[in-house]
Amino acid sequence: MNTKDRGILVVGSVALDSVKTPFGGIKNALGGSATYFSTAASYFSDVKLVAVVGKDFSQKHMDFLRKRKIDISGLQIKNGKTFRWKGYYEYDLNNAHTLETHLNVFADFKPDMPENYRNSKYVFLGNIDPDLQLIVLKQVKSPKIIGCDTMNYWIEGKYNSLKKTIKHVDILIINEAEAREFAKEKNLVAASRKIMSWGPPYLVVKRGEYGALLFAGAHIFFAPAYPLEEVIDPTGAGDSFAGGFMGYLASHTEKLDIEHLKRAVVFGSVMASFNVESFSTEKLGNLTKSQIIKRFMEFKKLTHFEMLK
Amino acid sequence: MNTKDRGILVVGSVALDSVKTPFGGIKNALGGSATYFSTAASYFSDVKLVAVVGKDFSQKHMDFLRKRKIDISGLQIKNGKTFRWKGYYEYDLNNAHTLETHLNVFADFKPDMPENYRNSKYVFLGNIDPDLQLIVLKQVKSPKIIGCDTMNYWIEGKYNSLKKTIKHVDILIINEAEAREFAKEKNLVAASRKIMSWGPPYLVVKRGEYGALLFAGAHIFFAPAYPLEEVIDPTGAGDSFAGGFMGYLASHTEKLDIEHLKRAVVFGSVMASFNVESFSTEKLGNLTKSQIIKRFMEFKKLTHFEMLK
Repeated sequence: MNTKDRGILVVGSVALDSVKTPFGGIKNALGGSATYFSTAASYFSDVKLVAVVGKDFSQKHMDFLRKRKIDISGLQIKNGKTFRWKGYYEYDLNNAHTLETHLNVFADFKPDMPENYRNSKYVFLGNIDPDLQLIVLKQVKSPKIIGCDTMNYWIEGKYNSLKKTIKHVDILIINEAEAREFAKEKNLVAASRKIMSWGPPYLVVKRGEYGALLFAGAHIFFAPAYPLEEVIDPTGAGDSFAGGFMGYLASHTEKLDIEHLKRAVVFGSVMASFNVESFSTEKLGNLTKSQIIKRFMEFKKLTHFEMLK
Repeated sequence: MNTKDRGILVVGSVALDSVKTPFGGIKNALGGSATYFSTAASYFSDVKLVAVVGKDFSQKHMDFLRKRKIDISGLQIKNGKTFRWKGYYEYDLNNAHTLETHLNVFADFKPDMPENYRNSKYVFLGNIDPDLQLIVLKQVKSPKIIGCDTMNYWIEGKYNSLKKTIKHVDILIINEAEAREFAKEKNLVAASRKIMSWGPPYLVVKRGEYGALLFAGAHIFFAPAYPLEEVIDPTGAGDSFAGGFMGYLASHTEKLDIEHLKRAVVFGSVMASFNVESFSTEKLGNLTKSQIIKRFMEFKKLTHFEMLK
């Protein structure tokens, strides 16, 4: 949580989400992978956002991003409507059911970055077309640490492009089912080894309410999800995880080593846990640093045990 | 791993299992909840087994139990056949598909214990009719620590009996789905609080390949499952977990405190991880203490992180 780094560049979606869960709902609320990522990362590091919205994107949402000190000079505003997603969750909050997806201006998104973005040392390639991820990467002069997300849609539709992109990536952060699908391996450990053989030296596998696994060479590290008595809306949990993870790395290290990576996984889990406690960015966007540190400490209590006496 | 305790009394099933998984299969192999529990616990403590088998139960299986120094003077041998289960797993090893269940002599099981069993200080009520669990409990003179397992069948069919039994129990060890069903609560933390309000001060929730959670007052502790590159057969994993858990407690403490309980959860996870590496008790029954300690240490590496500097 210092500002010696030159910030994280993140590319992804900024969206307007309509979500229903058994605990309530919201309409056209601020969402999107880059929004959740940026908000979570903003507690740790400077963040430079690359995304696109339509003319309908409200001043209120702009103000929210600015208030979190997120650099939005790379946020394109195009004629047309902002990307919209409509979905719901039943009591099983692990499964999002999509009702409507309107890509709108996001369909023709061409990442083109302001000059000051190109010196970023930390880059996070949010879940977009892997060809676009590569275009973004080529615009950054000398990145130190590159993280990357993806999804089943690209694994199925752009398999070769994705394999090309991840060759340049230090840390791939994906869901468990996606890891299995990408590697065509049922066993998660075997799947992870296979994906790492394709390029990324580090792999983080997100397991929703079951936590996250870090694979780093022969080392495996595991952090649970924080056990909450009330989960309101899981939308954006994975992106908030990635934001906390990359934010911690950007503010604390230029070199990837296992101890920093472990703490980054825990800070990712911390930010994801806050995110699911409200709709949209209501809770995630209004935290204090001491709340974050307190929950980090609680993760230690949750997993540490003393050795035999 | 000392013998100062007076051993664990366990009641449950001894069965002959026929199992197929994508990695092979076995026919009429030694199985059953009390078998897996006893085998796992036998590395830590003396074990006294209460169960029933038929005349078809082979000398080879008896010899196996004796070799593990399990006291089988409470193993009844009745006219008829031993309890048999036939099932298979697909690539998703979390779900057992039952093909056949023949209770055989287990249908009329009446636990009746040898005199020397009645002084046991540690009792584990394996997954049987909660009315029988209570009968067992009444035969033990002054138990110190009582653990208990159950399943959806009893939750649905003997709800009130089960609620009566768990009033006497220190630690209830059940699956995640069963915890939700028993409490009629979707959220696991809320479900656990509710179950604990019915009696047991400690609750362990088993989550299969996602590990186990311990609830102890306001404290929650989490241990992952050991990430294995090859899982051969998950049958008995939960029972092996319970065996390692109770075995550790029996050999190390007469009082339940959070540090002992945490270590017990980790030893439970250790024993479950060995169990799934082979069919039946092939691997679980042939371990050395140093293998067990080594894997315990690996769990520390898997979950511990250093605090902020």
